[in-house]
Amino acid sequence: MVPGTTQKVVLTALGGSAATPADGLTAEVVTVSTFDELAALGRDKVAGKIVLFNEIFDKQKAEAGFAFAAYGEAVRYRGAGPKSAADLGAVAALVRSVGNADYRLPHTGFSFPAGIPAAAVASEDADLIVHLASQGRVRMHLTLTPQKLPDETGYNVIADLKGSDHPEQIVVVSGHLDSWDLGTGAIDDAAGVVMAMETAEILQRLHLRPARTLRVIAWMDEETGGSGSKAYGAEYSVDFPHYMAAIESDSGAAHPLGFDIRAATAAIEALRPVQTVLQSIGATILQPTTYPPGADIAGMSEAGVPTLGVMQDGRTYFNYHHTAADTLDKIVPGELRDNAAAMAVMGYALANMKDPLPR
Amino acid sequence: MVPGTTQKVVLTALGGSAATPADGLTAEVVTVSTFDELAALGRDKVAGKIVLFNEIFDKQKAEAGFAFAAYGEAVRYRGAGPKSAADLGAVAALVRSVGNADYRLPHTGFSFPAGIPAAAVASEDADLIVHLASQGRVRMHLTLTPQKLPDETGYNVIADLKGSDHPEQIVVVSGHLDSWDLGTGAIDDAAGVVMAMETAEILQRLHLRPARTLRVIAWMDEETGGSGSKAYGAEYSVDFPHYMAAIESDSGAAHPLGFDIRAATAAIEALRPVQTVLQSIGATILQPTTYPPGADIAGMSEAGVPTLGVMQDGRTYFNYHHTAADTLDKIVPGELRDNAAAMAVMGYALANMKDPLPR
Repeated sequence: MVPGTTQKVVLTALGGSAATPADGLTAEVVTVSTFDELAALGRDKVAGKIVLFNEIFDKQKAEAGFAFAAYGEAVRYRGAGPKSAADLGAVAALVRSVGNADYRLPHTGFSFPAGIPAAAVASEDADLIVHLASQGRVRMHLTLTPQKLPDETGYNVIADLKGSDHPEQIVVVSGHLDSWDLGTGAIDDAAGVVMAMETAEILQRLHLRPARTLRVIAWMDEETGGSGSKAYGAEYSVDFPHYMAAIESDSGAAHPLGFDIRAATAAIEALRPVQTVLQSIGATILQPTTYPPGADIAGMSEAGVPTLGVMQDGRTYFNYHHTAADTLDKIVPGELRDNAAAMAVMGYALANMKDPLPR
Repeated sequence: MVPGTTQKVVLTALGGSAATPADGLTAEVVTVSTFDELAALGRDKVAGKIVLFNEIFDKQKAEAGFAFAAYGEAVRYRGAGPKSAADLGAVAALVRSVGNADYRLPHTGFSFPAGIPAAAVASEDADLIVHLASQGRVRMHLTLTPQKLPDETGYNVIADLKGSDHPEQIVVVSGHLDSWDLGTGAIDDAAGVVMAMETAEILQRLHLRPARTLRVIAWMDEETGGSGSKAYGAEYSVDFPHYMAAIESDSGAAHPLGFDIRAATAAIEALRPVQTVLQSIGATILQPTTYPPGADIAGMSEAGVPTLGVMQDGRTYFNYHHTAADTLDKIVPGELRDNAAAMAVMGYALANMKDPLPR
């Protein structure tokens, strides 16, 4: 680029309570790859500037099957970057989009409140800014128009298929209702809600009455803080000792590989026979985790409820996640059906096993 | 969607002299797949409406290696659709984006002047509109902000490597300078300009003096009417009988497969030995065509000058073509080098063959 010329870049405001508009804010840009680099710059070099966090999503890791690990590494900067920049006096923060496609799509998402404008920038534009900043002074002029509207009352949507023998023992099957407004939220997470609803529908259609209660939950507000699941916990956590297990799907609708599971080793062993049933759709993995395998079931998980997350093939998930391209056409009907089958098999097994899972 | 609700869609104004803004235009949508369907609707059903042309780019054809054929079929609606809708009284025209990616990217491009607002709509949104229109009445509210600025004087950029033996016999190597403003025009067509410049650079570096004159041309205004190549023709067509040949690259920078060639059969036969030289980079195809193999060399082609277009692997070209995602990162340096080598080999062969090509 010729010195003194300008170039438009593609941005989208970050969401959650962090949303702060910027109308014509102009400042010099400093770029960093890590929190350590930011700290090393210190207040002198950050105050009054726009900080660009250029943590690069690891595409090769994602393509090798570890998309969620790649996401976890990169998304820290979207979550905590703006606040850490604001703490050093930055006037705005930009975060390289967390995703692996190359279609100049900005990926929005939750960011902790920072009190300064914060946006995701398409990876092409992050590359451009970093390249230019390596050659000289780069100034940006930001126009960001997020609106933080007043909170409204929303609802978790809950339906029970009452258990015949142990109605007080609950098996939760769930996804979340809310989504980011750039797209229509088909993969994040209408798909999970469909799987949970289909689980009840499949049991009804097959005239399978669960011995324990199957509870379908479409969670409200997963994306901006989890107020839906927190409200549920506030009301029902007293019963969590009687919960058999909870399942959530919040990773799209691509081919199901199995389940992430956070439970006692003996509980995981007790579920091994279910793997056999799931062989026909290739969803046999039972992967022990130390973290809650779903944001909305994290409260239950921390309270000791065995929790499972449907594990999808995530290789292309972060091409679309939190972008304008998260639309229904991204869902392959046959793969969504396999996901619903996987959740239904696991949900029914949990509802009808002879004994509660060991904790 | 719930009746009475609204949904935002992703649009970009079509370009060229067709650019007409729309600020708040609201009207009912009619959808058609073909010009015949539009004609069958007639003025009664089209007047006062917004027409959506939903010709679907044939992805399978593109993936099978016939991307430019797929483009040719679909792009007719972008070019002539708005005018044909306006002729029946439509108040605006939308065209499903001509491309094969699924990242909700609208693809702009030339459209013939229609006097009504005209835009490309992302394919996801075209699907949505067609789906809704099949269920009931769909009204759209258009905000399009194209600006048609006054014409400015621009220039073709021309450099000669003077021929040692027949300086009056010209071999043109070329790409075009202008691009659409959504992206930065790396694949369309900075890449072609680079190949032409590299052709001269490679000959210089190898101390190869061409016997005929090698003329590097970076054409101005390929995208909105070809005024650059037309001005060149107006000034120089008197010399076209002495032109040896003209090459243009305007299909990106992916792996070169060879050349499209419009020339007498005997001329194509005379170029067969060049295929042997091009074997090492896999660019051996000499594909006879009946159309000019490049927009800027069409005038020469029609005047009888043998014309060649560099033929790239086009399978992913229309993922990015005329979108915000046409940026430098889409170019693989090694593939660009192979393209430059292909143009240089062909350009040098044409400059140094013993006899002019038969016409």
